[in-house]
Amino acid sequence: MSKTAGCCQNCLHYVFDYETTKTLVIPSTLVGCVFRLAQLLILLYTVGYVCVVQKAYQDTDSVISSVTTKVKGFSLTNTSDMGPRLWDVADYVIPPQGDKSFFVTTKMVVTQNQVQSRCPQLPSPSTTCVDDCDCTEGYSNPRGSGIQTGLCENYSTTVRTCEVFSWCPLEIDTMPPKYAMLTAAENFTVLIKNSITYPKFNFHRRNILPHINSSYLNSCEFNRATDPDCPIFRLKHIVSEAGEEFQDMAVMGGIIGIIIDWSCDLDWWAGKCYPKYSFHRLDNKDPDHTVAPGYNFRFAKYYKTPDGEETRTLIKAYGIRFDIIVFGTAGKFGIVPTIVNLGATLAFLSLIPAVSDWFLLTCMKKRDLYRKHKVTYLSDDAHTESVSD
Amino acid sequence: MSKTAGCCQNCLHYVFDYETTKTLVIPSTLVGCVFRLAQLLILLYTVGYVCVVQKAYQDTDSVISSVTTKVKGFSLTNTSDMGPRLWDVADYVIPPQGDKSFFVTTKMVVTQNQVQSRCPQLPSPSTTCVDDCDCTEGYSNPRGSGIQTGLCENYSTTVRTCEVFSWCPLEIDTMPPKYAMLTAAENFTVLIKNSITYPKFNFHRRNILPHINSSYLNSCEFNRATDPDCPIFRLKHIVSEAGEEFQDMAVMGGIIGIIIDWSCDLDWWAGKCYPKYSFHRLDNKDPDHTVAPGYNFRFAKYYKTPDGEETRTLIKAYGIRFDIIVFGTAGKFGIVPTIVNLGATLAFLSLIPAVSDWFLLTCMKKRDLYRKHKVTYLSDDAHTESVSD
Amino acid sequence: MSKTAGCCQNCLHYVFDYETTKTLVIPSTLVGCVFRLAQLLILLYTVGYVCVVQKAYQDTDSVISSVTTKVKGFSLTNTSDMGPRLWDVADYVIPPQGDKSFFVTTKMVVTQNQVQSRCPQLPSPSTTCVDDCDCTEGYSNPRGSGIQTGLCENYSTTVRTCEVFSWCPLEIDTMPPKYAMLTAAENFTVLIKNSITYPKFNFHRRNILPHINSSYLNSCEFNRATDPDCPIFRLKHIVSEAGEEFQDMAVMGGIIGIIIDWSCDLDWWAGKCYPKYSFHRLDNKDPDHTVAPGYNFRFAKYYKTPDGEETRTLIKAYGIRFDIIVFGTAGKFGIVPTIVNLGATLAFLSLIPAVSDWFLLTCMKKRDLYRKHKVTYLSDDAHTESVSD
Repeated sequence: MSKTAGCCQNCLHYVFDYETTKTLVIPSTLVGCVFRLAQLLILLYTVGYVCVVQKAYQDTDSVISSVTTKVKGFSLTNTSDMGPRLWDVADYVIPPQGDKSFFVTTKMVVTQNQVQSRCPQLPSPSTTCVDDCDCTEGYSNPRGSGIQTGLCENYSTTVRTCEVFSWCPLEIDTMPPKYAMLTAAENFTVLIKNSITYPKFNFHRRNILPHINSSYLNSCEFNRATDPDCPIFRLKHIVSEAGEEFQDMAVMGGIIGIIIDWSCDLDWWAGKCYPKYSFHRLDNKDPDHTVAPGYNFRFAKYYKTPDGEETRTLIKAYGIRFDIIVFGTAGKFGIVPTIVNLGATLAFLSLIPAVSDWFLLTCMKKRDLYRKHKVTYLSDDAHTESVSD
Repeated sequence: MSKTAGCCQNCLHYVFDYETTKTLVIPSTLVGCVFRLAQLLILLYTVGYVCVVQKAYQDTDSVISSVTTKVKGFSLTNTSDMGPRLWDVADYVIPPQGDKSFFVTTKMVVTQNQVQSRCPQLPSPSTTCVDDCDCTEGYSNPRGSGIQTGLCENYSTTVRTCEVFSWCPLEIDTMPPKYAMLTAAENFTVLIKNSITYPKFNFHRRNILPHINSSYLNSCEFNRATDPDCPIFRLKHIVSEAGEEFQDMAVMGGIIGIIIDWSCDLDWWAGKCYPKYSFHRLDNKDPDHTVAPGYNFRFAKYYKTPDGEETRTLIKAYGIRFDIIVFGTAGKFGIVPTIVNLGATLAFLSLIPAVSDWFLLTCMKKRDLYRKHKVTYLSDDAHTESVSD
Repeated sequence: MSKTAGCCQNCLHYVFDYETTKTLVIPSTLVGCVFRLAQLLILLYTVGYVCVVQKAYQDTDSVISSVTTKVKGFSLTNTSDMGPRLWDVADYVIPPQGDKSFFVTTKMVVTQNQVQSRCPQLPSPSTTCVDDCDCTEGYSNPRGSGIQTGLCENYSTTVRTCEVFSWCPLEIDTMPPKYAMLTAAENFTVLIKNSITYPKFNFHRRNILPHINSSYLNSCEFNRATDPDCPIFRLKHIVSEAGEEFQDMAVMGGIIGIIIDWSCDLDWWAGKCYPKYSFHRLDNKDPDHTVAPGYNFRFAKYYKTPDGEETRTLIKAYGIRFDIIVFGTAGKFGIVPTIVNLGATLAFLSLIPAVSDWFLLTCMKKRDLYRKHKVTYLSDDAHTESVSD
């Protein structure tokens, strides 16, 4: 084969001759140990940290989810202006349809029988007046309660304020009660149904696990220790796991996050993919660094009087909003991340000979001997073609 | 240059002299082929799997989206207690504002003219009584219907039950009708407008594609085969693509996910980035492993009688909730993932000589010859400086 | 050690003898420079682009968030059919509870006192008739307004249309006003409270930053230049930053995305993690390539007449829906991505000798000299064991 030397032959030689490095074996146990130890460390890191701890060999996908909620319970209130009144789900849950965010009313400022008309504003430094000159017709304070008519009227026997055109009587929310009305709300329960999908892995699951039957569901209540799989939560339990006191929070309202973590390792038995619940307060209860602390909003019920005039009942509802936040990342063996992580580790393995050689040629006693055999200096005097060996 | 040997010169030599490995060329076609084949395999994997199939050279981003929906259609019902009644969108869609989750009512249990008062509970093992001693004043069963007054009253001529304070008359939901009321709901249509953004790539798109004009939109209806781009969906079609029968599902209600997949490859003509629709039932219809199967919720309409008393109509609405779930990942060429994936593959290429050498020195017939020329053993007897060549 | 040569000894030799490549040093400044330059380039890429620009050494996580909104302001309208009327938050914000998506009404088509009854349809080519034969009892056009009774009635003195059973009187929405009603809506303000979490890094933050106190919050208004941290936004400002004119948009309605970008680098002082606000119009305002341009929906308020009949006021509300879209990716130093990126770069470093060797052996003048000393050709004639050196 080496005799005939055609062009094509040469070319094939070029492609198929195997070119390998010449090596020198040095019987130094020290360098050998350093070399093997470094290899071992990188191997341990790869197997131990990358594969076992970080599961970097996995493809990942984010969860998509659908949630329904159903609150149960009722509460009796007995206030001077409304008398005894029973509140059921249709009264205190807003919105009613059981979305992933629901609000449970705990306190209300109710202003009944409002009609479009004129009335003196509530007294405050900016609304009190002496006579009509202090009031500007058509002026409206964005934080006020209506459009000024330009008249100054008696609010009480001692105070006169500018009259406004608005829904009258005006809401008096300057002194909201310091206690919750629907105190029984802490014992309301909520059933949370959550169905999730990891689209990349075509993986579907519900938070009501397959081994749970309906008779258990009719009687259970979530408890981290005894019933971690029960999807029925007592509101008081949710709030206390979030580190708050229900009755305190009920006074000014607030927002609680019910966080469902669906992080899963889908490589092993997928039945191990369970939801993990946790609870956090999401709003800032520190009144110094927020505005409008707590959580409340206003809505109205509209009525018509027999003679066709529209009236409304304005309700400023305080309460706790529960936001169900579903998140999670599923991992499953993927060839690309595996290759990438193994490859990156291999690259570090290829770094070891460089380090070992440096150690060999600078730190060892016999470094000159080693250097003499390992490294050949090609002299620059090309005409002599001398090689310092 | 080799004559003058100052310190700086030496240092420059160290930096700029080029150190290369000495190699041995072995004219073995077998080893050469094994070597080239391994290189080819890794190259093929890189080009084929990593680049073409997995598109690992791409940066990715997750979609953010905004959805509006608009339902059209009406249905006539004729029940004994309400007489003939036409239901339009404002009556049966909850909430009305066309969010990404909307509910279409298909059945209702309506309890009219409820007022806060006292009435005997519905008969059940826990509510029947013989005399007042069986009833506890102030007691309320969480699954009951109000606060017991302590009296035992005639529910009918044969049954006596504990009286409760509640919204009376109580809702009788023990025998909900076994058929849907708004049977025409299956022919309602819904227009879905979806606008998405991939913020990392500053890419915006709508599900109403640019080539679609408004006259087409006024008459089209989604069909996977003939009109895959029409954003108007017939509810029956959605439910049947999810593998369910609309009229069956309408009886107890349920949740259907309308899943819009915006997975896109933005490297090529971005106009290819189309939404893909799919439909899944999200709730569990198996009554054995769930509680409260189907989907329903209660809400109330509040009225005032001419003498100012508040009454309400309690509605337990069964129906289908449609959740529009938008997901997707866009990929676009990114230098970092490309480098990482190429680098990882290169690392594997560097593994090949090690494997080929092992093959060369253990499996080949002429392995001793090869070893003799490739490997130099440095003898440990340093004083003799003998080298076994 | 080399004298005693037991089997185990041999094995240990195999493991602990250090095998290193034999190298040839070539004093060519050109090749040395090319080699060092290539190394420098790869190093610069790694440090500069991968680490500084792309921060590829970081683990990333996606944001989960909770939003509340509170709109303030009121508007006076004076229309012929409703007279002067003041609109406050409870009237124009839908839904009222301050979710991450809220709708501000700007225009309404109100149809009062609808009852279930019969009335002639609005005239249109498909509804006009000459006598009863033109109308089909029980027929309903999906885009019509009710179920035909089969009668042809006088709509006006000149036009006869098919009578329908429906909520009558029918809504007349063929000529909605060309101007917004609640013109003062542009001066409404909205307070947005947003609390976010990066669960992987256990990082929580609110858009009301710690250094902001409540007195500032009571008076500030968002302005990109002067008040970029104020969470209170004037609706007109939002719309104009989205490139639209509020009064134009108010006529037909539309959807504005309030986009909060929480992209953060958590490696440095985390206090630098601020929300960045931007505003975009999300719906398509081009009427040629959409259907039902703008944004509107219908809802009803239900009343009862003194004799118990149900009536409703149908409202077709036009307005602007504000969708608050929170997104973001946080990055924090992670050992796995660092290793992967460094490893991939190292792999490129290992490519350099191959390139340099090719350059050395093909482009240099002294390439034959270099080749002679670098490469040893093992002759195929194994019996002679000749080596062409």
